[in-house]
Amino acid sequence: MTALAPELAVTHWFNTARPLSLAGLGGKIIVLHAFQMLCPGCVAHGLPQTERLHRLFKDRPDVVVIGLHTVFEHHAAMTPVALEAFIHEYRLTFPIGVDQPDEHEAIPVTMRRFNMRGTPTTIIINGAGRIVEHAFGQVDDLALGVLLGTLAAEVPRSDATSSSDAECAEGACQAPAPVCRSAILS
Amino acid sequence: MTALAPELAVTHWFNTARPLSLAGLGGKIIVLHAFQMLCPGCVAHGLPQTERLHRLFKDRPDVVVIGLHTVFEHHAAMTPVALEAFIHEYRLTFPIGVDQPDEHEAIPVTMRRFNMRGTPTTIIINGAGRIVEHAFGQVDDLALGVLLGTLAAEVPRSDATSSSDAECAEGACQAPAPVCRSAILS
Amino acid sequence: MTALAPELAVTHWFNTARPLSLAGLGGKIIVLHAFQMLCPGCVAHGLPQTERLHRLFKDRPDVVVIGLHTVFEHHAAMTPVALEAFIHEYRLTFPIGVDQPDEHEAIPVTMRRFNMRGTPTTIIINGAGRIVEHAFGQVDDLALGVLLGTLAAEVPRSDATSSSDAECAEGACQAPAPVCRSAILS
Amino acid sequence: MTALAPELAVTHWFNTARPLSLAGLGGKIIVLHAFQMLCPGCVAHGLPQTERLHRLFKDRPDVVVIGLHTVFEHHAAMTPVALEAFIHEYRLTFPIGVDQPDEHEAIPVTMRRFNMRGTPTTIIINGAGRIVEHAFGQVDDLALGVLLGTLAAEVPRSDATSSSDAECAEGACQAPAPVCRSAILS
Repeated sequence: MTALAPELAVTHWFNTARPLSLAGLGGKIIVLHAFQMLCPGCVAHGLPQTERLHRLFKDRPDVVVIGLHTVFEHHAAMTPVALEAFIHEYRLTFPIGVDQPDEHEAIPVTMRRFNMRGTPTTIIINGAGRIVEHAFGQVDDLALGVLLGTLAAEVPRSDATSSSDAECAEGACQAPAPVCRSAILS
Repeated sequence: MTALAPELAVTHWFNTARPLSLAGLGGKIIVLHAFQMLCPGCVAHGLPQTERLHRLFKDRPDVVVIGLHTVFEHHAAMTPVALEAFIHEYRLTFPIGVDQPDEHEAIPVTMRRFNMRGTPTTIIINGAGRIVEHAFGQVDDLALGVLLGTLAAEVPRSDATSSSDAECAEGACQAPAPVCRSAILS
Repeated sequence: MTALAPELAVTHWFNTARPLSLAGLGGKIIVLHAFQMLCPGCVAHGLPQTERLHRLFKDRPDVVVIGLHTVFEHHAAMTPVALEAFIHEYRLTFPIGVDQPDEHEAIPVTMRRFNMRGTPTTIIINGAGRIVEHAFGQVDDLALGVLLGTLAAEVPRSDATSSSDAECAEGACQAPAPVCRSAILS
Repeated sequence: MTALAPELAVTHWFNTARPLSLAGLGGKIIVLHAFQMLCPGCVAHGLPQTERLHRLFKDRPDVVVIGLHTVFEHHAAMTPVALEAFIHEYRLTFPIGVDQPDEHEAIPVTMRRFNMRGTPTTIIINGAGRIVEHAFGQVDDLALGVLLGTLAAEVPRSDATSSSDAECAEGACQAPAPVCRSAILS
């Protein structure tokens, strides 16, 4: 029912010492976020969400977050040099690949392989290499979290740590929100 | 390591035909959201998040979302009559119980049993009745989603539907966000 | 063309040592913000905006910000006792009057005199006592600021201070926003 | 006390048929917004605010909104070609000039003339050509509106239309906000 994910075609990587490939990440859950640096929806929603996802999962071996710069318009503006400055200014820390340009058309190679409709696109690939989610546009944080938690629970984990404890130990559940404290509670 | 959840003590219920109890919900994952109607952090963050959670899970048999009005200050202002108007105006649809007032002190009974520090407080109880999360203040959507997805995946499900498909079929993953469409993509 | 503002009918005042009246404030520009404590649009937008307006103008003699609790529904829930707790929890510091209930109908006296359609309603009265703005719903900050600045400039001011300097000296123009600093700029 | 504004040095204009100069706009109030297309604070706050300002004032002869692309870092990324794509994607409609690069240093000519500290910077020039506001970082909508309204009221206007009416006739004061309507109010 779900399709096997095709391989990435990337010409340049940022934020990673070694090139990444889906084959090389076999067995892991992969969040692939396709964006363009001049896409307002990516800048306002998609990329901040992807960065938060990366920070939530970066110490876990079972989930990997990857960005993909799928330039299909304004090619002269969104060069790798421009992307590098963008990554620096927006403090993005997850691995980001530049989708390989196609010689004959505007849409780059990986974008076409995955049949993406535009940016932002969020694709979730399970441990068996199958596409279990392919969403164009804004993705809800809660629904995305539930999906990833569900998938991650199905992956046999090598470490004994409970994932639930791990997430909340990082403080995600104790953010500095406005709260009502009772004067009588110490 | 994790504590068994004590039972709720509720004097009045809204948005449910029958009183709820943790014992009666045994085997399910429970999200218990304690709030006060005049707590700014609850109104701005906690309650909208709880409502979204309820809508995400309301058709699933394995996760139940419950609100608890734990009045520990301004008792004359936050009466059940006032709460009913509040629930109506804020369009809250999940079950909400009024925590039983204590005759001798400001903090109500359930709030004390759970050792809550204030409002908003979000407590997650797993299928075995144990408290796996107890968070005071604002809770991150992504981290909360991952935790619930993980717990839900560990519960044996009676229906054959894949949870991942179900969530995204409801449109949570295709919200009307600003996106960049390519003129050359149909 | 613009109507003369009718007088307020208020039964109880908060955040002011003395009762206020439009007659007593003659010559000043008055921002009258009508709200209900259980109105979501008031809590999310109208009241925070009114509080910011009050803080912006509180040291100026020419503009006065007044809140009016115009309860026209859920009367048993939105009592003066409940309002007092609400004002405390939401840290509202501008003067707030309770609109006088009408013996025969749900809509209170001042609300009817001003022909308000609901809450939130923002009414601007100029120095001549005329209604120059009567807005139901969310009001844009920029447009509201321009209107008030324009009106204030038409009022003869007793002090010699430039209003422009005063506002910005309070730091409103140097908020702690994310900015790009150049490494070469000291 | 306030300094005379130096002239702009611009190499390329967008969104205007003719080059603009402060000298040529003498007598008008000018909002000069300096930004960089890869500056997160500009994209999130400064540019949307400037666009809203432009739309609020575009039919008035007394206030002119001008953007200035003051590239002082990542020069290879923020070229005029890239800026053109950015303006298109972000739907910016106000006139935008490219600050003239300096042969000897990173900071462009106009940015240096105005002694700007970084981006975003908002500068307000009154009808007499003097700098009455010079703000680095995020600027508050209300305070900015009050300042512009005050300045505009001091400029003799050639048309007879009341500015207050004009702004609100455009709907800025009647945005579709969540409001509480009374069932008994028609």
